[in-house]
Amino acid sequence: MARKGTSTGDGKRHTTIREVAERAGVSVATVSRILSGTYPAAPATRAKVMRAVEELDYVANHHARALQGTTRKSIAIIVNSVISPHYAHVAQGVQTQAAEDARLCQIGTTGGDAERELAMVQFMREQHPEAVILVGNVNADDEYRARMSRYAHALAAIGSRLVLCGRPPLGPDAPAVVVEYDNTGGAFAATGHLLSNGHRRILYLGRRPGYTTADARIEGYRGALAAYGVPHDPGLEADGTFERFEGYRMMQERLAAGAPDFTAVFAANDQIAAGARQALLERGLTVPGDVSLVGFDDLPPAADIDLTTVYQPHEELGRTAVRLALEHARNGGPPPHTVLGAHLVIRGSVRPVVPA
Amino acid sequence: MARKGTSTGDGKRHTTIREVAERAGVSVATVSRILSGTYPAAPATRAKVMRAVEELDYVANHHARALQGTTRKSIAIIVNSVISPHYAHVAQGVQTQAAEDARLCQIGTTGGDAERELAMVQFMREQHPEAVILVGNVNADDEYRARMSRYAHALAAIGSRLVLCGRPPLGPDAPAVVVEYDNTGGAFAATGHLLSNGHRRILYLGRRPGYTTADARIEGYRGALAAYGVPHDPGLEADGTFERFEGYRMMQERLAAGAPDFTAVFAANDQIAAGARQALLERGLTVPGDVSLVGFDDLPPAADIDLTTVYQPHEELGRTAVRLALEHARNGGPPPHTVLGAHLVIRGSVRPVVPA
Repeated sequence: MARKGTSTGDGKRHTTIREVAERAGVSVATVSRILSGTYPAAPATRAKVMRAVEELDYVANHHARALQGTTRKSIAIIVNSVISPHYAHVAQGVQTQAAEDARLCQIGTTGGDAERELAMVQFMREQHPEAVILVGNVNADDEYRARMSRYAHALAAIGSRLVLCGRPPLGPDAPAVVVEYDNTGGAFAATGHLLSNGHRRILYLGRRPGYTTADARIEGYRGALAAYGVPHDPGLEADGTFERFEGYRMMQERLAAGAPDFTAVFAANDQIAAGARQALLERGLTVPGDVSLVGFDDLPPAADIDLTTVYQPHEELGRTAVRLALEHARNGGPPPHTVLGAHLVIRGSVRPVVPA
Repeated sequence: MARKGTSTGDGKRHTTIREVAERAGVSVATVSRILSGTYPAAPATRAKVMRAVEELDYVANHHARALQGTTRKSIAIIVNSVISPHYAHVAQGVQTQAAEDARLCQIGTTGGDAERELAMVQFMREQHPEAVILVGNVNADDEYRARMSRYAHALAAIGSRLVLCGRPPLGPDAPAVVVEYDNTGGAFAATGHLLSNGHRRILYLGRRPGYTTADARIEGYRGALAAYGVPHDPGLEADGTFERFEGYRMMQERLAAGAPDFTAVFAANDQIAAGARQALLERGLTVPGDVSLVGFDDLPPAADIDLTTVYQPHEELGRTAVRLALEHARNGGPPPHTVLGAHLVIRGSVRPVVPA
């Protein structure tokens, strides 16, 4: 639909008061009087003008122009999916900080598909965000590193920047801001809590070799076993992704093999813990009566199932990503890199083992 | 940063092979040979070219151009927040359907603020999405209707369309696609289930007069009471928003007044139900031993707390929004309007009342 109008210096097009007047069949002075609201006008004339304003979107443009100076700058965040509580809470933190800094925040999702991620980065790049934040667990292979390096350079070329959130740094050749949290430390604390309570056979649910988050957490699990002098049994590590139905599947398969050969479970996240708990309850086993259980995240449903877990600062992760990106935009220099802490939250899902 | 390049017909700028050659200090033919991957090249030359390609973002542009025909079209969805499981699941449905229809999906959040919503609609409109989907509970006052009408006209003016998802229609003057679900029918079924189990004193948590979703649900609650011939007691309706901490607060306040004067609770959503359950447990009351509990949504943590609730098709709502929008884009005509159903999911949180 072709419409005439003025083109402003920033390349955006705004409907003019003259167009409104033409469409309503009244003078420019009449439109001006009615829009200013300070003069009386016949209801019929007023209705004609307001209708023309709506049809030509004058008010919206006008309103948006008023907002432009403060909020038209933007921050983009790209996640696999927003139904994962972890991604959703990080995105919430990004939104909150962006709002405080008078930036719009837009979220892109990829469904975990690299092609869609590339298309999304390109799409968002065209809107010149100050930063594009990529979140989460990845298989950090060579292809991944090459892709991230391309993003980093492509964004730097337009004065924007890549932020990796909950992902490891890329090395000196790729200019990316990095905000991580302490997966290994948190997993060490969770496993240590079970060991301190006398557990020696601790099932690990959610091994996924090659994936950064999964690898960092299992490293914490193994590190705690070593620190407590408990022999590492690879037979106690079950492979699976970080979803509830996977937790259910892993525990079901384990229980199908016979009575539990473990007294406690460390689930790589709360979703896995919730699924595993359901499988235990369905077999008539109780938590923590028969099996102690610890998760990772402290996100729903952790509190509702009284789960001892590791708190990680999801929203703070998103907020920090925005803060560091804007700081880097102002000051330049080498992109900042920071690691946030994680700590244990004690609830009722762990029972001490009484020595025989 | 000023860079030369070709401008394509669609207004986008692409780096050329000539620029890559200049930057790498080799011939165009050499770049072409190396990028095609079909001819051998000296490692040092190859490294120079790949470095220039990365710096100039040639690969990303090239790759994106290949994708453009299928995925550069987009759908936008705007929600208050992505940490509400309801919004997150609707957004997931939009993303899934958009991907199946080869569209990119971008999500904007507003924090429930009308100014940010306006800025977000304007921002997304500049990217010419085929549809802008607005989701969720609103206070449907005159200001709201005027704002939606402006959005609808502003989007129609660029050949896009407004989609209202889980919101009532605006009337004939505002061209919006509408996808609703049956809040009143679902609430009637939930309350009817408690009444069928002999409950007569049913506490309603989450009244919020003026808000469309809250009003539709309490209408179902009152309708079921009337259908069963149970007198309506306004003292059994508690005011609050749809969040977990609000459910906790409402139940805590109720219990602070003395022993429960109700045998069952209908919470306006599962988040409220989870918060209310926590307050009950902290007072030493059990569900369903002392108090029966029904929610609305069938989203986490419903299954984990064994909650009887109303299933509503969140992801299908998002998928339908995309389908109807694209159908309307193809066929024109009056914007479609549809209502999806909701049904009861029976779990273990309701106990029959034995007549005295």
